[in-house]
Amino acid sequence: MDKRDIASFRQWHRRAARLAKQAGFDIVYVYAGHDITLLLEFLSPRINTRSDEYGGSVENRVRLFRECIEEVRDEVGETCAVAVRLAVDELLGDKGITSAGDGREIVEILAELPDLWDVNVSDWNNDSMTSRFAEEGYQEPYVDFVKSVTSKPVVGVGRFTSPDTMVSQIKRGVLDFIGAARPAIADPFLPNKIEQNRPEDIRECIGCNICVSGNNLFTPMRCTQNPTRSEEWRRGWHPERIPVKDADDHVLVVGAGPAGLEAARAFGQRGYDVMLAEATRDLGGRVTRETTLPGLSTWARVRDWRTGQIEKMPNVVVYRESQMNAATVLETGCNLVVVATGATWRRDGFGRTDRAVVPGTDRSNVYTPDDIMNGAEPEGPVIVFDDDHYYMGSVISERLRALGREVVLVTPEAVVSAFTTYTLEQSRVQARLMEAGIRIVASHSLVSIGADATELRCTYTDRVSSIACTSVVLVTALTANDGLYADLVQTAVADDDDGLRRFVRIGDCYAPGTIAAAVWSGHRCARAPFAEITDEVPFRLERVELVDG
Amino acid sequence: MDKRDIASFRQWHRRAARLAKQAGFDIVYVYAGHDITLLLEFLSPRINTRSDEYGGSVENRVRLFRECIEEVRDEVGETCAVAVRLAVDELLGDKGITSAGDGREIVEILAELPDLWDVNVSDWNNDSMTSRFAEEGYQEPYVDFVKSVTSKPVVGVGRFTSPDTMVSQIKRGVLDFIGAARPAIADPFLPNKIEQNRPEDIRECIGCNICVSGNNLFTPMRCTQNPTRSEEWRRGWHPERIPVKDADDHVLVVGAGPAGLEAARAFGQRGYDVMLAEATRDLGGRVTRETTLPGLSTWARVRDWRTGQIEKMPNVVVYRESQMNAATVLETGCNLVVVATGATWRRDGFGRTDRAVVPGTDRSNVYTPDDIMNGAEPEGPVIVFDDDHYYMGSVISERLRALGREVVLVTPEAVVSAFTTYTLEQSRVQARLMEAGIRIVASHSLVSIGADATELRCTYTDRVSSIACTSVVLVTALTANDGLYADLVQTAVADDDDGLRRFVRIGDCYAPGTIAAAVWSGHRCARAPFAEITDEVPFRLERVELVDG
Repeated sequence: MDKRDIASFRQWHRRAARLAKQAGFDIVYVYAGHDITLLLEFLSPRINTRSDEYGGSVENRVRLFRECIEEVRDEVGETCAVAVRLAVDELLGDKGITSAGDGREIVEILAELPDLWDVNVSDWNNDSMTSRFAEEGYQEPYVDFVKSVTSKPVVGVGRFTSPDTMVSQIKRGVLDFIGAARPAIADPFLPNKIEQNRPEDIRECIGCNICVSGNNLFTPMRCTQNPTRSEEWRRGWHPERIPVKDADDHVLVVGAGPAGLEAARAFGQRGYDVMLAEATRDLGGRVTRETTLPGLSTWARVRDWRTGQIEKMPNVVVYRESQMNAATVLETGCNLVVVATGATWRRDGFGRTDRAVVPGTDRSNVYTPDDIMNGAEPEGPVIVFDDDHYYMGSVISERLRALGREVVLVTPEAVVSAFTTYTLEQSRVQARLMEAGIRIVASHSLVSIGADATELRCTYTDRVSSIACTSVVLVTALTANDGLYADLVQTAVADDDDGLRRFVRIGDCYAPGTIAAAVWSGHRCARAPFAEITDEVPFRLERVELVDG
Repeated sequence: MDKRDIASFRQWHRRAARLAKQAGFDIVYVYAGHDITLLLEFLSPRINTRSDEYGGSVENRVRLFRECIEEVRDEVGETCAVAVRLAVDELLGDKGITSAGDGREIVEILAELPDLWDVNVSDWNNDSMTSRFAEEGYQEPYVDFVKSVTSKPVVGVGRFTSPDTMVSQIKRGVLDFIGAARPAIADPFLPNKIEQNRPEDIRECIGCNICVSGNNLFTPMRCTQNPTRSEEWRRGWHPERIPVKDADDHVLVVGAGPAGLEAARAFGQRGYDVMLAEATRDLGGRVTRETTLPGLSTWARVRDWRTGQIEKMPNVVVYRESQMNAATVLETGCNLVVVATGATWRRDGFGRTDRAVVPGTDRSNVYTPDDIMNGAEPEGPVIVFDDDHYYMGSVISERLRALGREVVLVTPEAVVSAFTTYTLEQSRVQARLMEAGIRIVASHSLVSIGADATELRCTYTDRVSSIACTSVVLVTALTANDGLYADLVQTAVADDDDGLRRFVRIGDCYAPGTIAAAVWSGHRCARAPFAEITDEVPFRLERVELVDG
């Protein structure tokens, strides 16, 4: 960028502020967060290698940032606030901006210039860490100096989910305002619930970053805790309110996993009489099982919020240790039966990349994630074959490694847990496994499993090689537990006038997927239990017309 | 999918055909190409493991495809054609559909049902191969049986770019129609030019798949040969026509690389008097140098089409071996000077992932792609450090391997030539390197270079390791050759009344990038040589209004 380029940039920046003011905004940000803006790149000595008055010393590197803040101020006047977002630490140590070094100096130089300091760490992978890798409020040590340097109010972020943590940082003078995007996706009414002193009603963010994956994949944003997310306008789903029941049906929900719990809760909220039958002693289904795996404990909130709500509903009755079959289902006399019996990990090697049954998968030294979650402890060396590519392969590997096993993670993808690229976790997942001493064999698929060796094939060259191992864990794909549903299809036809209006299947027993998808499926069922599949798109579309540009 | 799901699918498919007919289309496709549709998944024994009448035998697997073809026919009637697209070979050998097996049987079963057979190979990586990996018409051996099995017309694809190849396949009875998407992106007037018997005017597709990368990256589609691509509506750029000059300026273009050649050609087409000064004996710049590297020879068409067009223009004069400086530029008396002096590969290790100068890069055993293209033959073992991530690292490695060197390709990305994922080439690039015996060290950055060893750092764990090597080739980033431009900035100020109206820089000497970007930059300069950077967006936007959905 020569001086004319810089002048152009400042001019465009000015204009953007002017347009924002005209559009009625109350706060205009000058943005140098996340490793994504030119302003941060000018601040960074790693990127800014200029030899003129915009490079070199901190004062010089701050110059463009300062000019833009001043020019925005000049454009928007005194009735619109000028906020600054700044990454005060890049988590790169000596190679980047640190809060003990340049980060602090930048805030000192500009201390009173903005109306609000919004401070965080950079890049986005660091700023939006998941619960698997960071505690609530983890940015505190990086940003806590800011209030001592400026008299202006300071806002920060850092995976705040509980009111206690938020209040603690305010009371201790770390921040003046709490920034919380993901928690507000999980529960847009979080501030109201704090104000109304009903913290138990907060649908607390589990920190899984499924929301972020929607952003990165250009798909509607989903939330594991809040199934109404992205459906507010197009389906008219309010995050808190749901229509009162429109029939006197008695509802039976079979299975208390994430789909069944959400269905029972939402039917209950609508005022239906609901029986929730769970085969085991524990509620939560896969959520309860998976939260025993390393790093996933916060996910229990998916269960806990729903069981907490259900406990307050006299019209929802929970039956534990109640294994159902078609006959006992019909005996309940319920008019609407919702089958939410979950899914089971495949044991035959058929996965996402390699859609084929693998020879040797019938051997006794072959395990699935269900086995591990049920307490199996395979002998090492263990191969974990991951053809699922989300979190399961990596957490199973961690679990086995924690048992002292020698572990080799094999995957047809080039990286471990490839899908976690979209949740911003991939580099941390792979680093954690490598640091735990887990060997990674990427870009290999499974050819066959033997008694003490497994054959692999390179996805690039098709070359076959062999790895010695005593056990294999297959993390490939799930099969729906649709036995009860299939039995109902048979039985209910023969039993047409028993008052049963409809039976449906939801969640993983219909289509195995993420926990977010299961919760969504349960919620949708309760919103529209009698919705038939039709030719029509079942939600409003943003129909656009092209106007003259 | 149970039977109700299948019924729903057929119903939606019918409706889609009906809507297409209503919208006025003349041909409706039933699509089973590319490994992307449910119909192909039902056809594939690898994916379709059903035990009912939709699975098992070929007849069963064809059932849904047949039903959909018949139902589309029923919906659209006889005034609208029903075409079928079918991947007759998945290039998976025994594991998939092959043209000698199921592929042929499917065509035999459905032979006379559609009005048009559109046949190709699957998946998209195989169907849209680049010139680096496939010859023109490479799908012929897979699809040539089709005409012998049906009396209906047959269309196929396969990177057809030259009229000769197209005519050959028609004359030999391989196909009835030629399908060519990429060649029509490179030259939408290709059919007209064949009809008008001016094949030398065809802007022949080079087969680089930059167009596909735009699709995969959700960015406007670009074309290396056709800079007007995606600009037809928003900038009003016609692929063939360009406004006649609006001033009597004499234009000097310095540098005959892709940007300079396109600028000279387009200025010439507008009617300007143009001098094109090239420092060396050869036209084409980086295009000419890069086409000497393995697999890139078709790229010479970028140069050849432009030099061919320029040769026909009496108003464009080419001066070879004419190294220019600020004084000689001003001596030409041209009113408009376009600097297109290209870029040079960096020799200091500063790249895309690792934005830092690397110690030891000043050693005499360190090379750049420019050195290799200029004929340097470093002693092995050689490390090729690729922090550029497009094609250069891989073709340099291939070149060195072909010289018999032991080669290690090191890259901070998890895969070789990561950007080529977007051009559908990544798996083939990596396979070719591995099969050539090139060792790949992924996920490692460069710490320092010594006399006979290089230190690397794991991008996940930061662990430092060492690899013995005699030479290192740095493929990291380019620096603009902006010396002449900088001199003009100085000189022209002192020489303001010499008739020089403007000087600009284009292509790599302004912003190093792809060849497509350089060609675009040259074209844009000729369309609007006096366009100033302004606050306004310099093209029409698709402004949309939300209407009630």
